[in-house]
Amino acid sequence: MLVDERQLKDLDQLIGYLGDFWRAQAGVRASGKIAPASSKSAEEEIRAERLPENPQPLSTLVDAINRLIVPNVVKNAHPLFLGYVTPPSTDIGALGAAISSILNQNVMFSKTSPIGTAIEQKVVDWLADTVGYGPARGGIITNGGSLANLYGLAVARRNMLGANVNEVGNDADPRCLRIYCSRFTHHSIDKAAILMGMGKQSIVRINSDSCHQVIISELRERVAADFARKGYRPVALVGNAGTRHVCAFDDLESLRQIADEFNLWLHVDAAYGGFLRLADNPPPQLAALSKADSVTISPHKLLFVPFDAGAFLVRDKQALRNTFGTEGEYRSVEEPPSDDFADLGIQLGRGMEALKVWLTFKYFGTKLLAKEYTRLMNLATFLKDIVQADPRLELLAPVAGTVVCFRWVGSSCIPGEYIASINAGIPKMLRQEGTAFIDEVVLDGKRGFRVCMTNFRTQEGHLRDLVNRVLSLGEQLS
Amino acid sequence: MLVDERQLKDLDQLIGYLGDFWRAQAGVRASGKIAPASSKSAEEEIRAERLPENPQPLSTLVDAINRLIVPNVVKNAHPLFLGYVTPPSTDIGALGAAISSILNQNVMFSKTSPIGTAIEQKVVDWLADTVGYGPARGGIITNGGSLANLYGLAVARRNMLGANVNEVGNDADPRCLRIYCSRFTHHSIDKAAILMGMGKQSIVRINSDSCHQVIISELRERVAADFARKGYRPVALVGNAGTRHVCAFDDLESLRQIADEFNLWLHVDAAYGGFLRLADNPPPQLAALSKADSVTISPHKLLFVPFDAGAFLVRDKQALRNTFGTEGEYRSVEEPPSDDFADLGIQLGRGMEALKVWLTFKYFGTKLLAKEYTRLMNLATFLKDIVQADPRLELLAPVAGTVVCFRWVGSSCIPGEYIASINAGIPKMLRQEGTAFIDEVVLDGKRGFRVCMTNFRTQEGHLRDLVNRVLSLGEQLS
Repeated sequence: MLVDERQLKDLDQLIGYLGDFWRAQAGVRASGKIAPASSKSAEEEIRAERLPENPQPLSTLVDAINRLIVPNVVKNAHPLFLGYVTPPSTDIGALGAAISSILNQNVMFSKTSPIGTAIEQKVVDWLADTVGYGPARGGIITNGGSLANLYGLAVARRNMLGANVNEVGNDADPRCLRIYCSRFTHHSIDKAAILMGMGKQSIVRINSDSCHQVIISELRERVAADFARKGYRPVALVGNAGTRHVCAFDDLESLRQIADEFNLWLHVDAAYGGFLRLADNPPPQLAALSKADSVTISPHKLLFVPFDAGAFLVRDKQALRNTFGTEGEYRSVEEPPSDDFADLGIQLGRGMEALKVWLTFKYFGTKLLAKEYTRLMNLATFLKDIVQADPRLELLAPVAGTVVCFRWVGSSCIPGEYIASINAGIPKMLRQEGTAFIDEVVLDGKRGFRVCMTNFRTQEGHLRDLVNRVLSLGEQLS
Repeated sequence: MLVDERQLKDLDQLIGYLGDFWRAQAGVRASGKIAPASSKSAEEEIRAERLPENPQPLSTLVDAINRLIVPNVVKNAHPLFLGYVTPPSTDIGALGAAISSILNQNVMFSKTSPIGTAIEQKVVDWLADTVGYGPARGGIITNGGSLANLYGLAVARRNMLGANVNEVGNDADPRCLRIYCSRFTHHSIDKAAILMGMGKQSIVRINSDSCHQVIISELRERVAADFARKGYRPVALVGNAGTRHVCAFDDLESLRQIADEFNLWLHVDAAYGGFLRLADNPPPQLAALSKADSVTISPHKLLFVPFDAGAFLVRDKQALRNTFGTEGEYRSVEEPPSDDFADLGIQLGRGMEALKVWLTFKYFGTKLLAKEYTRLMNLATFLKDIVQADPRLELLAPVAGTVVCFRWVGSSCIPGEYIASINAGIPKMLRQEGTAFIDEVVLDGKRGFRVCMTNFRTQEGHLRDLVNRVLSLGEQLS
């Protein structure tokens, strides 16, 4: 037997299994324990597996999925999964992913998938509408925000330093290249600078104020000083629309002014917060998101699209072509430079990941999404109010988007080091007992929790349960 | 209505549609026209779509898929789809993709998905078994070979130049960094060098012999010369296990010797050809693939896994951690550096793409895959023999793997420029009439076709049909 015969054998059985699995998951995913008490035995069984020599029947695979994977997943569809910005996926998104995998279009050139190319262009348009870009816009789907941030710095470097970057690299300007951002900017910016051969030293982190927004006066001073300093070349600013720690929004309007004054590229990491621009009452800083030269926005975050689905957008498509165009490598000499996605990023062979995003926008529409984002922001305010009303809890940062950071402080004078260890213990115990999943955070030296409202299943009652459980665990640990 | 209610409404209908779609595709994908005669009206309809404000019913979406997408896909599941290395996807792979999308695990840290982490580690193990790596091996799933090649150069730079690369970038060594490869090496290596701030100038392309293998003596001479030259720093060699044009295999054993002699990193791009190591009679050069320091191998190529699924492997996992480890950014100080996938690549949030690879290895097993690869290599020999036996056709390169490059030359003395334009016309006409999909190639100034045997549905009879059609189109155009 060869692949084709094996392939054709049990399609009906396979489709039947998927349907049953999906229906069962609809209930299971959202109830019971969030995280497995222990997945050690399943992990050990997987670790002991040898590279299979003989075909295993579908029933064996189904058993492996049901026995090893299903009981051991971390249920981000559970209403009390509030850790990281990892929302549950929607069924329509999963349908899109399944169809893309069946059709297996290669969206590298228009000729390898004209329709896949049209769909991705449309999705880029809609994401660009979301951030407010005009008609010159361009962009591409990526596997997440980190790759999109890498594209942001690469496009900045190429377009500020010129075409010679592609030939001679960073030596196109012998000066020290500098990129400026707030100290709360995501570490993917550092990873990008490392990969780009500029090193972490090229990232200048500026202080933030108590709202976690970059301090504009300090930023301006630092840029001006480097601008005047021999041997230094300011290249770009990176703004935040939803910081990793507390979902803060930088003053993008002022960043734009500084960028214009010193001729810098402005990239904004809106992977998480960019979608809130659609909310009824969006964070005011998002009005100026449209003025960024490039933007990271991730559909696998607040568009609830299954992994992987990030996106990188530019105000002027030519900037992207300049950076990633392959100059005829894969096309006949007579073919002109194109809008093929192979020329707009580093991938060559690439699937129709845009389909799940296209279906998601259609299935929900912006009005429903606006209501959902408004609801999530209101949930954050709801939790903030509970925290502020209870003397046993301390809010660790203002709430600007959908993240609430707080810690347990107890009711009496407990020494600082005990408080830290109690707050370190609480998220671990919540995960172990499987009642809630929240992330840890340290802000101004205070260890506490980061609760991300990105889950369309979470209701006010769940947040009350969370707070009550945090209070009793704090009590119990102290 | 909000996302959760909308989400729960029509799951049964959605599952029913997917099943019908999948069953219908099983037949449709493999017959009829390969490429749409024109998808212009569908593309225009998509281009005219406005960002949806109101939710569209599932039936409208189903209609859009059936009317706009399905008739306009390029059917890489058709037996005469032989263009590029884009095989049809398998049903088991699509099942894996669907399940991953439903569960939506975030495989960034062990704590966000212990079971997803175990599955990806196992898949890395099996891919490492395929290339012959020992127990110290490590690796990660990527979105394709281009990203994996970027990782290859990044890991080479970091591990040859030291930890200071992460701090100061390419200036860690003030000399001109140089990477050596054959002139037929994939252009993703250039794109990687550009992104890494070294520019295209850092890539030294060495001549290849008539078999498209890098000329070892020239490579050694060039490395030795740069090694002795003030201001130059040879860093890495890039070998090929399946070149883009003709699927040639470099002499990896000799590359290893040169790498050892001059203390260079050896990265091998085996995105396409690496899996042939499992064949009954593999290309002999693949025996030394296990001696590479790092390897690119793409499951969405010869493992028939749906897009996107590439992989990057290293002989020593520590090399990967050195390059991408985030040093505590997202973990408590007390947690030690880990094997979390967030520390082994640039992505942070990332799905369980490994599941489809895991299921594929189990469903087929290496013995069946070995037979399939042997069959594909035999198909290449079969086509080569037909071409060589017909004076109207000319073989453009020796056949070492599963690619055959040839051109039409006709039966009489036709001037060179006519032959070139006829050969340029043939693949376009085949695509337009929808009978076959083959890629174009120019080798030694001769324009012809590149036929990639990567399709598990292709049989000898299909190749006979292809050749007959090429002959009559050549006749017709001349």
